[in-house]
Amino acid sequence: MEIIEIITKKKDGQELSYDELKFVIDGYVNGNVKDYQMSALLMAIVCNGMTEEETINLTKIMIASGDTINLEEIHGTVVDKHSTGGIGDKTTIILVPIVVACGLKVAKMSGRALGYTGGTIDKLESIDGYQTELSKEDFIKQVNEIGCAVISQSGTLVPADKKLYALRDATGTTQSIPLIASSIMSKKIASGASTIVIDVKVGNGAFMKTIEDAKALARTMIAIGESYKRKVICVLSNMEAPLGYAVGNGLEVRECIDCLKGNGPKDVMELVITLATYMVSMGKNISIDEAKKEVEKVIEDGTAYEVFTKWIKAQHGDIEKIKISERCISIKSKESGFIEAIDAFKIGELSEQLGAGRVVKEDNIEYGVGIVLSKKVGDFVLENEEIAKVYIENKDIKVDDVLDCFKIGEHAYSQKLIHEIIK
Amino acid sequence: MEIIEIITKKKDGQELSYDELKFVIDGYVNGNVKDYQMSALLMAIVCNGMTEEETINLTKIMIASGDTINLEEIHGTVVDKHSTGGIGDKTTIILVPIVVACGLKVAKMSGRALGYTGGTIDKLESIDGYQTELSKEDFIKQVNEIGCAVISQSGTLVPADKKLYALRDATGTTQSIPLIASSIMSKKIASGASTIVIDVKVGNGAFMKTIEDAKALARTMIAIGESYKRKVICVLSNMEAPLGYAVGNGLEVRECIDCLKGNGPKDVMELVITLATYMVSMGKNISIDEAKKEVEKVIEDGTAYEVFTKWIKAQHGDIEKIKISERCISIKSKESGFIEAIDAFKIGELSEQLGAGRVVKEDNIEYGVGIVLSKKVGDFVLENEEIAKVYIENKDIKVDDVLDCFKIGEHAYSQKLIHEIIK
Repeated sequence: MEIIEIITKKKDGQELSYDELKFVIDGYVNGNVKDYQMSALLMAIVCNGMTEEETINLTKIMIASGDTINLEEIHGTVVDKHSTGGIGDKTTIILVPIVVACGLKVAKMSGRALGYTGGTIDKLESIDGYQTELSKEDFIKQVNEIGCAVISQSGTLVPADKKLYALRDATGTTQSIPLIASSIMSKKIASGASTIVIDVKVGNGAFMKTIEDAKALARTMIAIGESYKRKVICVLSNMEAPLGYAVGNGLEVRECIDCLKGNGPKDVMELVITLATYMVSMGKNISIDEAKKEVEKVIEDGTAYEVFTKWIKAQHGDIEKIKISERCISIKSKESGFIEAIDAFKIGELSEQLGAGRVVKEDNIEYGVGIVLSKKVGDFVLENEEIAKVYIENKDIKVDDVLDCFKIGEHAYSQKLIHEIIK
Repeated sequence: MEIIEIITKKKDGQELSYDELKFVIDGYVNGNVKDYQMSALLMAIVCNGMTEEETINLTKIMIASGDTINLEEIHGTVVDKHSTGGIGDKTTIILVPIVVACGLKVAKMSGRALGYTGGTIDKLESIDGYQTELSKEDFIKQVNEIGCAVISQSGTLVPADKKLYALRDATGTTQSIPLIASSIMSKKIASGASTIVIDVKVGNGAFMKTIEDAKALARTMIAIGESYKRKVICVLSNMEAPLGYAVGNGLEVRECIDCLKGNGPKDVMELVITLATYMVSMGKNISIDEAKKEVEKVIEDGTAYEVFTKWIKAQHGDIEKIKISERCISIKSKESGFIEAIDAFKIGELSEQLGAGRVVKEDNIEYGVGIVLSKKVGDFVLENEEIAKVYIENKDIKVDDVLDCFKIGEHAYSQKLIHEIIK
């Protein structure tokens, strides 16, 4: 088999066989297929797409490139959740204790993130002492004892994806539904959960800019899940404006605690309850209505918060000590009017500038920095009233850049948060 | 400017500006743009194409990446010819002395080739003693004295093309009209000729498989030529079957001498006379009819052959000593019938297997090996009659593989050689 023939086939829009894909991925991992050949093939895939069968085969081959986690030693049903990534998206940290309080298990491996704010692991590290590395035995033991554990993703899990992801990032080949679907699903399946809820973000602050693309991605991921007999549901949620008020690692954890104490922002709670309801309904095989009641109950009666404190303590975190920068600047609106839109993408870029995210993998994160909105879409702001707070450490941003994120006008729009559920 | 943004733009089918293309090409030559980024961009160009303006700009930037040859010291009109490459295509070696005998000058830099048989320079090196390297002064002096010189292309001419060509070859990104057009025209324009005739091959033995693609390539090259005020004409010629009888370096030179002595194969002579006629007509600004008469005259009266002997002697070649292998196998037909087709692509592959061409740049060529057809399309062959001769050095090929190149049947087809002239 020749790599050039395989690239040419995909360039001409033809379907690649299992053996051809295996030749490419195994060759890329062991170095026989060069970076410059892989990037040409990736671009041909971005331009010409892949069939469902190709995407499923690609996922299988990527999973086989590394270890897989066997969760059979865990007593009970293990559920998992993934988000395609959005600004201010802190739902995992709130969801985990909720579904555990409902009687399910979560054995979660999360990633760190490039750009914007950090990933779930970066957010959890803003809690003083939180340990993101556990041995496999301690990981399983903790899940059996307190119901959950959230650790950093091991490098031996889907190494092919790790190498491919870095190359895609450096070659403008990230935006492809089959490549995104196989990247997400290979890690989810290798991590072992039987029931997976995926939050597919749609809008200018997300990878998927349109509902059509988000639906296509959802259907592809569900098809991959089916081929492994995993239950997968996708929730399409709006990512035009940031989720909640807080953007930035420590600031987001503080908001998570508010949510678990019953004082969370309306949009965060709506999304958390939707995602948790589907996880509980699928995981316990009960109706949506029953699941929703259970979810609301464990938030109201404090049992979810109780699970949260146990979980963080088990991983040596101190919830009294969350890193939040002391230098805080109040940003005042220069005009009066309704907030018609908040640009999630720009807010993400600004928080990255402050140091909340990474430009390259080696960058250190400033856990305490970020932006907290004082107003949400639909709110009215007066001239000179506070519109946002900016938490600063070493890097500054311009006040006007923050104000530019807000569109102020005459109309009190409300945004629809959940677009659709795809099963 | 960011390379990822530029790649993404082309991935989305947008037009790149002069500055963006310059950033890419200059960055690639100096190493700031990586191989894996360039190959992703090349694939996006292969998939989404380039506008005429982009292609002209790309050519300009490639030319500026290296030296250009100034031919002002040459007295007279300098004409040039290029072929997109075909099996058994030895026309340059015949054409050069013909147009010089008609009063024009040829100061030609030719390449070596990958695959199939060698390039013009490899063919000329099968003549014992032929020097392919001349100083710039000696090159100009020889053209002024005897009318022509054919030397190996300098590495300082269009270095961007050299680097890009190697990458395209290794990444399945060769088949793109804008990339082929800019590669050919950058070298032709940097080499300085004012009048250029290009033989665009069409068929299974050529890069361009269809007449539509060949026409599009021709029009793009003419547009690039116009932007530099160069006169460019393209001749679209058939490359389903090999040109002439001989395929292989020394064997082809021997056939060239036959042609110049008036004993050439009909198809080679038809193409040579057509190309020479357009070169002479454009170079001397005379009608096609007048030009054709001059061309035919210099062949018939032996002045073209005289120029040939002077040229080879000036570059220290001995035309009495042409490398041709002594081991020659006669291949006999297993059936009787008309030759309905000869697969140029397969003949090329077999001659490469014998050692007449290179698989990688560093391979040595066997100058004496190759295949000489005994029958052409339209000829009748008897069972057990010779259909081809194979000249062998160290590497063998199978008799059946040679026979497989011939399609024998009931019909006496004739092939049209010249499809169209595009100006």
